[in-house]
Amino acid sequence: MSTQVTLRPIMISESFGPTIQGEGALIGTPTVFVRTGSCDYRCSWCDTLYAVLPEHKAEWHPMSAEEVFADIERLSGGKPLLVTLSGGNPAIQPLGDLIDLGHAHGYTFAIETQGSIAQPWFARLDHLTLSPKPPSSQQVTRWERLERCIAAAQDSPGEPHPQICLKVVIFDEADYAYARDVAARYPDLPIYLQAGNHTPPHLAEQIDISGILTRLDWLIGRVVEDHWYTATVLPQLHTLLWGNKRGV
Amino acid sequence: MSTQVTLRPIMISESFGPTIQGEGALIGTPTVFVRTGSCDYRCSWCDTLYAVLPEHKAEWHPMSAEEVFADIERLSGGKPLLVTLSGGNPAIQPLGDLIDLGHAHGYTFAIETQGSIAQPWFARLDHLTLSPKPPSSQQVTRWERLERCIAAAQDSPGEPHPQICLKVVIFDEADYAYARDVAARYPDLPIYLQAGNHTPPHLAEQIDISGILTRLDWLIGRVVEDHWYTATVLPQLHTLLWGNKRGV
Repeated sequence: MSTQVTLRPIMISESFGPTIQGEGALIGTPTVFVRTGSCDYRCSWCDTLYAVLPEHKAEWHPMSAEEVFADIERLSGGKPLLVTLSGGNPAIQPLGDLIDLGHAHGYTFAIETQGSIAQPWFARLDHLTLSPKPPSSQQVTRWERLERCIAAAQDSPGEPHPQICLKVVIFDEADYAYARDVAARYPDLPIYLQAGNHTPPHLAEQIDISGILTRLDWLIGRVVEDHWYTATVLPQLHTLLWGNKRGV
Repeated sequence: MSTQVTLRPIMISESFGPTIQGEGALIGTPTVFVRTGSCDYRCSWCDTLYAVLPEHKAEWHPMSAEEVFADIERLSGGKPLLVTLSGGNPAIQPLGDLIDLGHAHGYTFAIETQGSIAQPWFARLDHLTLSPKPPSSQQVTRWERLERCIAAAQDSPGEPHPQICLKVVIFDEADYAYARDVAARYPDLPIYLQAGNHTPPHLAEQIDISGILTRLDWLIGRVVEDHWYTATVLPQLHTLLWGNKRGV
């Protein structure tokens, strides 16, 4: 009797780019996005429900690490760049082999995850963005899980660890207070505050740019008022540029 | 006969903040701006002529390092933060003592300069942004001077050097080609490409946001087309937020 190793496939919602990373620590950096399907959260303002809800499952593609990497190379024209793993919650997927394969070809990897699921392969990433969800999302943060994510990323003695940062989307005062709490819990991690986009995702092109900029202006004012000089305040550039349009 | 040391004062156009740095490597970071008066350039699209042209000299204030730092502390509420030295060309001014004084109190310092004048105190900065001016500025780049700025910043054996980066404002294809040349000359320095703002400075509030975003979109497309994945592409957030308004 032969032993067959059945590797779990990676569920892919979409891969696209190169474009720029529109938010967070790597804002403005050219990148290919790999968006995985499936999520353990249901954020009230989620802008990628097509990568979250089970009713979209038929649109997701089960792929091997080699197949995903072939897509990345096709998109990049074979020239190494930053790959951004997003979702859904990409931490649900088995992404370790993809990271190793990409590294062997000179690619670097960033992930965006809420911090609810830790994976040993976090330690092999180049950038880990943990974005715990504020009250407006209507999700509950389990801090011990977020801490497991940080520990997993740092659990590789002698190896370089990923750059870890926190990112909090902010719509209102309650979200802002939550972000202050996050920063107080993890004073050693850089924190990025992101002005939320309140335009419903189905309105692909009709983004309320002036409303988003007004929220950003308010957020900068709050940070300055509190002398919170260690925070970084940013919008989502892709939203300003392309609205809620997919694939950019 | 007593010996009197006459220290040259710092010519200050304005100090303001805290606000966020709206562009470049430190985009989104809370900072106080110290803008010096006087410039050796006359960029066609300069948005701070009030800190450049000699006819504005009467509006500039000759100040000691201690006086400038007192203003910074007043603005910051006494809590250390990033100070951004801008102009005009701040490299004309004697800023070494200000940097030392600020460092002693926990402040950090970034400078924005075109790279036409090198100063020994560049080595004591935390961040040095060199922004050579593209063809649309109608200025001529003297590369040997830019190189002297880089050398000055790195000339302090055993000390930590400032993070050095390049920034090029881009309006059109000729500017883009210039930026490619800059990157080829200094392959080890990170380069930031900034979509130019074509709204004349006297139109303080009527910024053509859609026009700026169209240029940013074009610039991202050019970078992707050329597989120029080591560049970072950004707008000026303060322009999107506040137009050409001063003091923000």
